[in-house]
Amino acid sequence: MNARENKIPRRKTRQVKVGKIFIGGDAPISIQSMTKLPTEEVDLVLRQIERLVAEGCEIVRLAVPDRKAAKALQEIRKGTDAPLVADIHLNYRLALEAIDNGVDKVRVNPGYLREKEQVQAVIRKAKAAGIPIRVGANSGSILRAGEMGRARLSGMAQAMVDRVADYLTLFEEEDFGDIVISLKASDVVETVRAYELMAERCDYPFHVGITACGPPSTGIVASSMGIGHLLLEGIGDTVRVSLTGDPVDEVRIAKRILQGLGLRGFGPMIISCPTCGRCHGDLVSIVQEVEEKLSTVSLPIKVAVMGCEVNGPGEAAEADIGVALGRGHAVLFRTGMVVRKVRLQEVADALLLEATSLPEE
Amino acid sequence: MNARENKIPRRKTRQVKVGKIFIGGDAPISIQSMTKLPTEEVDLVLRQIERLVAEGCEIVRLAVPDRKAAKALQEIRKGTDAPLVADIHLNYRLALEAIDNGVDKVRVNPGYLREKEQVQAVIRKAKAAGIPIRVGANSGSILRAGEMGRARLSGMAQAMVDRVADYLTLFEEEDFGDIVISLKASDVVETVRAYELMAERCDYPFHVGITACGPPSTGIVASSMGIGHLLLEGIGDTVRVSLTGDPVDEVRIAKRILQGLGLRGFGPMIISCPTCGRCHGDLVSIVQEVEEKLSTVSLPIKVAVMGCEVNGPGEAAEADIGVALGRGHAVLFRTGMVVRKVRLQEVADALLLEATSLPEE
Repeated sequence: MNARENKIPRRKTRQVKVGKIFIGGDAPISIQSMTKLPTEEVDLVLRQIERLVAEGCEIVRLAVPDRKAAKALQEIRKGTDAPLVADIHLNYRLALEAIDNGVDKVRVNPGYLREKEQVQAVIRKAKAAGIPIRVGANSGSILRAGEMGRARLSGMAQAMVDRVADYLTLFEEEDFGDIVISLKASDVVETVRAYELMAERCDYPFHVGITACGPPSTGIVASSMGIGHLLLEGIGDTVRVSLTGDPVDEVRIAKRILQGLGLRGFGPMIISCPTCGRCHGDLVSIVQEVEEKLSTVSLPIKVAVMGCEVNGPGEAAEADIGVALGRGHAVLFRTGMVVRKVRLQEVADALLLEATSLPEE
Repeated sequence: MNARENKIPRRKTRQVKVGKIFIGGDAPISIQSMTKLPTEEVDLVLRQIERLVAEGCEIVRLAVPDRKAAKALQEIRKGTDAPLVADIHLNYRLALEAIDNGVDKVRVNPGYLREKEQVQAVIRKAKAAGIPIRVGANSGSILRAGEMGRARLSGMAQAMVDRVADYLTLFEEEDFGDIVISLKASDVVETVRAYELMAERCDYPFHVGITACGPPSTGIVASSMGIGHLLLEGIGDTVRVSLTGDPVDEVRIAKRILQGLGLRGFGPMIISCPTCGRCHGDLVSIVQEVEEKLSTVSLPIKVAVMGCEVNGPGEAAEADIGVALGRGHAVLFRTGMVVRKVRLQEVADALLLEATSLPEE
């Protein structure tokens, strides 16, 4: 079913462990997201974590902007076994407290946490606790205002990578290698360049994503392009899709990105033609019905729904099962071979029956 | 405004002309789509073409499955100056008739139009009319059923490219170089490999897209990944996003892909943070309002809408203008420099005012 799996040669990286999830090495590329509520709202946060986990989120990050948030992590930790990451910006003491309260990873931003002694304190605490640190750089925060103008002209990616490389020497001095790196910008081109450049300089696993890329209308396109491009190059060990909206949607899009590249499987994937002047019947409605009916199937199969018989079985031969519409009926096929005719109104049920009788292979 | 323009080195290609639009060479990467109505419904088709053109579609393809459709092209030609492409599958005579009826390009599918004499007839007719031909291969149709199983295992991309290269010898024998090539599969990995392999073998411009990649829920992700990856490699001279749905949405997504890579500009692009526990205020609603208000602006600027002051001006320094929410107010900034405070309910208006007073540079 997953013939495409492992077709993309993957960058060799060290492996780190975040709670029960491994990042890097030969671990599956994991999906993460972030809670979007004040962290001290423990009950609401736990409910959001539950929704995220139910959708397939494997690592959950939480903002820790103040002591209230750091303290709340204790209760949140008791309420979930999801791997938790504390997101720290300005105050290193919050990182120490978050580690005491049981988080599985800390993210520090080299743009904000710069004092050597403070970074050392966080590194030593993480080492003692046996948890990794994400060095999470953002283009805007890592470059000071004056440099920004220059970087805009001369290459923000290189500037980001140089800064992060400098920062990593602090970790090397402490003999701490339990690191995940991210280098995000809201610009897709600069982001992918930064990761590509960094990939040549180290073997730390990468958390990949496009930061602040907007509402779903633009953010899905930007995240798919940036994360997709890197994954196609074998770069990326854990992914975060950032969208201004419900974090559950971030997980959904991340799953589609990974499955779209054959890297992981999360249930059926529907491939359907865009329709054209050759199309017989209302393909848009039929596809919607098929999507709904097959949502209970967990097998990662390709299901084709094509608008005409000429294109149908042939162009959809990559699919495990599929239909091609004809005048008043459809033909059902398995890997390009026609099996039988079905009535248009029975298409979704027929595909569900096929999907559920496929062998788990 | 478009500092990122031309940052990606582009594959050198010949240039062809489709009506008033150039494809390849240094021409802007053009956007195309396809009508999704029976071609003989001339009035409806012309209305759909008008909607597509209004959204920014630069080349319109129409299915020509039979003589009714071929004949209708005569009336459609009279009703629009949009560059028109006739999509031919089985019957080469329909290509000849379409050319007589004034189309600006013909697409032939090497999987269906195979007879040497028939292909020659189409080439000679196109040559006499001075129009290009797209050699538009689809994985499913180009590989015969028996080969499909093998190709699934051994590499569909290489099989597609070999087939198309064979086919192109027919064109070379006729000394016809006015060619655009596409090599589509519904599988993203195979599709990008096919284009990459073909890019090494010729300098014909490429029409890039992922075929039959499904409804918007999955198709936007797959198209963004496939088209985005190729464009990031400098491959692609004209793009088609295929979605099971309204073709106008295909054009919208194509615009976002091109603008997201800094290749073209189509009005403001909103970058907004995903929000987190640090966010002040209802960023989702504010972003929606900003999107609506700025929809009348044509300048291709980056507009940041960030949820907190800590991340705001710094992380959004790549933006031309932006706001960062604080408690009960927001700060307005230009390229990372704070300009003034605004009330939360005035954010969208303030950004509109800023956007419309920026110099056209």
